[in-house]
Amino acid sequence: MKINGVQHRSVQVDPENNTDVLIFDQTKLPFSLETLRLTECAQVAHATTSMQVRGAPLIGAVAAYGLALALRVDSENTAMERDAAMLAATRPTAVNLRWAIDRMLAKLRPLTPEDRVAAAYAEAARICDEDVAQNEAIGRHGLDLIEKIEKKKNKSGRINILTHCNAGWIATVDWGTALAPIYMAHDAGYDVHVWVDETRPRNQGAALTAWELGSHGVPHTVIVDNAGGHLMQHGMADLVIVGTDRVTARGDVANKIGTYLKALAARDNDVPFWVALPSTTIDWSVNDGVREIPIEERSGLEVTNVTGQTADGRIETVRITPRESAAANPAFDVTPARLVTGLITERGRCAASAAGLRSLFPEKAGR
Amino acid sequence: MKINGVQHRSVQVDPENNTDVLIFDQTKLPFSLETLRLTECAQVAHATTSMQVRGAPLIGAVAAYGLALALRVDSENTAMERDAAMLAATRPTAVNLRWAIDRMLAKLRPLTPEDRVAAAYAEAARICDEDVAQNEAIGRHGLDLIEKIEKKKNKSGRINILTHCNAGWIATVDWGTALAPIYMAHDAGYDVHVWVDETRPRNQGAALTAWELGSHGVPHTVIVDNAGGHLMQHGMADLVIVGTDRVTARGDVANKIGTYLKALAARDNDVPFWVALPSTTIDWSVNDGVREIPIEERSGLEVTNVTGQTADGRIETVRITPRESAAANPAFDVTPARLVTGLITERGRCAASAAGLRSLFPEKAGR
Repeated sequence: MKINGVQHRSVQVDPENNTDVLIFDQTKLPFSLETLRLTECAQVAHATTSMQVRGAPLIGAVAAYGLALALRVDSENTAMERDAAMLAATRPTAVNLRWAIDRMLAKLRPLTPEDRVAAAYAEAARICDEDVAQNEAIGRHGLDLIEKIEKKKNKSGRINILTHCNAGWIATVDWGTALAPIYMAHDAGYDVHVWVDETRPRNQGAALTAWELGSHGVPHTVIVDNAGGHLMQHGMADLVIVGTDRVTARGDVANKIGTYLKALAARDNDVPFWVALPSTTIDWSVNDGVREIPIEERSGLEVTNVTGQTADGRIETVRITPRESAAANPAFDVTPARLVTGLITERGRCAASAAGLRSLFPEKAGR
Repeated sequence: MKINGVQHRSVQVDPENNTDVLIFDQTKLPFSLETLRLTECAQVAHATTSMQVRGAPLIGAVAAYGLALALRVDSENTAMERDAAMLAATRPTAVNLRWAIDRMLAKLRPLTPEDRVAAAYAEAARICDEDVAQNEAIGRHGLDLIEKIEKKKNKSGRINILTHCNAGWIATVDWGTALAPIYMAHDAGYDVHVWVDETRPRNQGAALTAWELGSHGVPHTVIVDNAGGHLMQHGMADLVIVGTDRVTARGDVANKIGTYLKALAARDNDVPFWVALPSTTIDWSVNDGVREIPIEERSGLEVTNVTGQTADGRIETVRITPRESAAANPAFDVTPARLVTGLITERGRCAASAAGLRSLFPEKAGR
């Protein structure tokens, strides 16, 4: 997508040396757009745990390149398996990470060590290109949904879409998942307006989604995470679209903490609640999301401390709680399939159910 | 309640001159405990709109003293009615403010201007004393509820109570509403632990509830507003207790934005959701809270900017959104009575319904 009219991708190999991996440091947004150069596997791991790079699809793509960087140092079996396991362990909830590493290993294991580096770069590039194509397809299937809602509203006023966290182009390689339909609707001339949940504790909505939408010119308003229920009660949201870190075989949805609360409010107010995802986000081995998906518990410092920019431009971190107070920080929650209106995938839309998913992905049935 | 072992009230008349009104500046907590001296009516209005003083019961009590301060300047009818209207208009959602002003006027209108100042101080003091007594009674009726939950749990482990915003002693004259039962349970030796919603955008949970509980020694953990649903899904909350700014005759509950989302999650997970209130918070003239209660829209700066303390002790305000992004800030929402397990009042507990409220307050029936 575009930043001030210039097309970008969230991850790319440096065209100067065809080796280093370039990402944006997402912890610096929205205050500055800084490119981060990753030259070794450990840097990729650090960038992922520290959330300089985040977003389920993107951490999968970057981890694939991380393995390529690792192989440049040692491409023997032992090292490759060790580095792959280390990368896969950086974040526990998103399934795309494990999927990307598994796909890389499946490609690389049969090769001789000397063939692996080039093959790894090629496979990581394919993962990226496929991600872009999948998200573009998600965008089209979601755009159709927005068009239907516009018809239902009889073109009376703008279409208000609420989203939580950031499932935009910087959470993927390009386009985004939840935001792809919104970009397409905006580009097609529809009058869309986005309610952006700030998404505490890390404020990915306030910092990243607002920045993305603003950079692309999409009208939006930031709200606290507490506000969405009130807006839905008063008819001020026509649609909710969110991304996801893992969808189970029966359609339960793990996503950023607080998503479940928005799904409850959407249900209580008959607002459609859609989840956008590439099929790489589906974990066919898991059914009951609430019981089976591991929920990452992150540092309480993310709750007690907030980073932002002062009026005179300094970046400062401030504590908002008493020094003595403990904080807990579960990073994700699971929205049961019963609260999800449907899933938007690269193959089309389906119900959030085993039958719905089977209808789109018959080759996965019964696995 | 106690701060470091010393008993305090949230509002008092300066014992040195029997005239000035002393409050704590709640915008400075939890970083410093500063007493604010109010010497004229306009200062009371400013303290209320700027939320140096907040909490539905407390703003009523302080407004009563505000009228006393106004009368010291001019106690003729015209001035009294003008100043009363000005004070009543400082916050639109809490009904206690209007109730306190109405009660003061009912007492003062029949008096000659020269008798009004002393009568106003006396009536404001009665409002404060009654508030303390009512909250103590709420505490006892809520304590009984906590004891019942403890029995049901067979004394297996701690009782986890989630609360939103601050309905503690600094939101009232003393004891608090939602926190009164918790203080009593803690003082009685029960193993209570409180999940404190930080309560964006103004962080009354992170700043005030955490500070209050910590000062009194009650175990607690601060969480982001997004986390409560996940905790309830996993059996980590036995009970939700919140305060309220206005309860309608049929039991709808206006409270800090985000309360509705917690009520939805409580219902979805069979967690009891109780609302604690003095009867002065009931608006017998209103039934449908979602349609009829005015919701204060506050400045978007409360969303985009966060104030806290840096590691080296400076108080700083930082912006967390892109400079160009708009923000919306509805300050309250309404939880429909159907989601409320019950109300805890100074006269006991009742269902959140017209019948429930009538059973406790028969003299209000049919009004």
